[in-house]
Amino acid sequence: MSLTVVGSIAFDSVRTPFGERQRMLGGTAVHFSLAARFFTEVRPVGPVGEDFGAAEFELLESRGIATGDIERVEGGKSFFWRGRYEYDLNVAHTEDTQLGVFGEFEPKLSEKSKAADVLFLANIQPDLQRQVRAQCGKARFCALDSMNLWIDTAKDSLLAAISEVDCVIVNDAEVRQLTGESNLARAARAVIERGPRAVVAKQGEYGAALFTDDTFFALPGFPLEDVRDPTGAGDSFAGGFLGYLDSHTGELDEASLRRAMGYGTVLASFNVEEFGTERVARLSREEIDERLAMLHRMTQFEPLPAAAE
Amino acid sequence: MSLTVVGSIAFDSVRTPFGERQRMLGGTAVHFSLAARFFTEVRPVGPVGEDFGAAEFELLESRGIATGDIERVEGGKSFFWRGRYEYDLNVAHTEDTQLGVFGEFEPKLSEKSKAADVLFLANIQPDLQRQVRAQCGKARFCALDSMNLWIDTAKDSLLAAISEVDCVIVNDAEVRQLTGESNLARAARAVIERGPRAVVAKQGEYGAALFTDDTFFALPGFPLEDVRDPTGAGDSFAGGFLGYLDSHTGELDEASLRRAMGYGTVLASFNVEEFGTERVARLSREEIDERLAMLHRMTQFEPLPAAAE
Repeated sequence: MSLTVVGSIAFDSVRTPFGERQRMLGGTAVHFSLAARFFTEVRPVGPVGEDFGAAEFELLESRGIATGDIERVEGGKSFFWRGRYEYDLNVAHTEDTQLGVFGEFEPKLSEKSKAADVLFLANIQPDLQRQVRAQCGKARFCALDSMNLWIDTAKDSLLAAISEVDCVIVNDAEVRQLTGESNLARAARAVIERGPRAVVAKQGEYGAALFTDDTFFALPGFPLEDVRDPTGAGDSFAGGFLGYLDSHTGELDEASLRRAMGYGTVLASFNVEEFGTERVARLSREEIDERLAMLHRMTQFEPLPAAAE
Repeated sequence: MSLTVVGSIAFDSVRTPFGERQRMLGGTAVHFSLAARFFTEVRPVGPVGEDFGAAEFELLESRGIATGDIERVEGGKSFFWRGRYEYDLNVAHTEDTQLGVFGEFEPKLSEKSKAADVLFLANIQPDLQRQVRAQCGKARFCALDSMNLWIDTAKDSLLAAISEVDCVIVNDAEVRQLTGESNLARAARAVIERGPRAVVAKQGEYGAALFTDDTFFALPGFPLEDVRDPTGAGDSFAGGFLGYLDSHTGELDEASLRRAMGYGTVLASFNVEEFGTERVARLSREEIDERLAMLHRMTQFEPLPAAAE
């Protein structure tokens, strides 16, 4: 039981109608790891600069996250993103992106990272995803995320990477863009025909849908009256989803995939309640399971009236 | 057990990437009635012109729909809408709207219509909705729909109408616009504070969400690989939802509201499979219940692994 994630480790400056934060700890691998650590031993692999210091390592390590594969580049600067969200939090604007050491990233995996049971290839250049995938031969479940940039600039490489994983976890607009199919069910089928057994289409506040060759499952986003910062929600989703799957000792069947969707939904919902990693960093497993039970109650119905009616 | 719907009866000319139809029978009250008739006796109330002939009456009557309150205006023309949808069927363009007799509509309800157990005030001017509501004193459940036009031009009147019904069934963007709240959960609460016990937010292909004072429930849209014409999907949803509620002899509790959401989702999904009323007009109750069972299987999960795992 061990989970490796390869992706960005960053500082984020974020402004939303509900507040503002400067240079918060962020990045895909960070949000993912903070969510996944409730379920398993997680190892983020990614580069940071000299601005990534003892406080940042301490935050991760105190939550049981293995930081040995975080590569600190002397003289370098960490990935930095600054963005703002409109009153409608679905509308985001990037104001600054500085790749820093992430621009020259060449993943170097320790033996422990290579031995992962579950692997998440977060949104990085698809050739790098393939290199990492090739090194993790023991993984029983591999998933990848991607983005419009790679669909536009490295589509063949991305399609090759997709054919080598078990699961694709992307925004629903990206499933459509990748396949040129505006119908999501057809688009998901087109992805599955390339090899993966599952496609998870993230749908923002509407939740997420899971497609396999012969099944469909969907969960709404957990309803929240206070959403302060959506940054990292998708990565927290993936962390909850794959973290649970790594912890699940049985077969990764439909029932366990659906339960993993539930954990992903719950972790994403906690993520957006406060800025950056604030909420997930002080979350407890009890709160997670309590919210999963609430989500369960919010999604169940009986197609036939009880006999007594 | 009887259901009255007040709304448009129209001819629609529709072009989508999957075909084109001229002057199909359409309109809110038509789509609603064709969905609701599987569950109960439904009476559409609305005006038509001389272009609405024996064939149109026959189509409705042969499906058990009571047409006595369809008012045929001598010398008038029926509501006409022409629109097209882009490759992404979520993007619609109205190319022509001719209100015809609908522009001068003053609802006249027969005694049978006034005696309805369930009432649906489809999207018409809110003062007219209130007039109709006042005449239907026996209804045990009243719902209304509306649109951005009335939020912009007759908001006070619309808010008064909302305070007089049990349920608001609108697009989720309209819940937000109506309340000035971008957060859907807060927006729904603001509507409920005005009187209704439930808000149904229609979310297009993402499905629909049900809010009450202390519960939340959501269903995804039924996944379809072939969607040909989305026109009328929301009205078919409302027809399945309210038709089921009218047929349900027990208390209209959370379980029955959720089951009604299921029927609404199923009717909407059949509606979009073909153009206009084509699919729903030849649908059977067996097909509906079969799809409801499929929807049920697509939305259930177990938060805890089975003990044997």
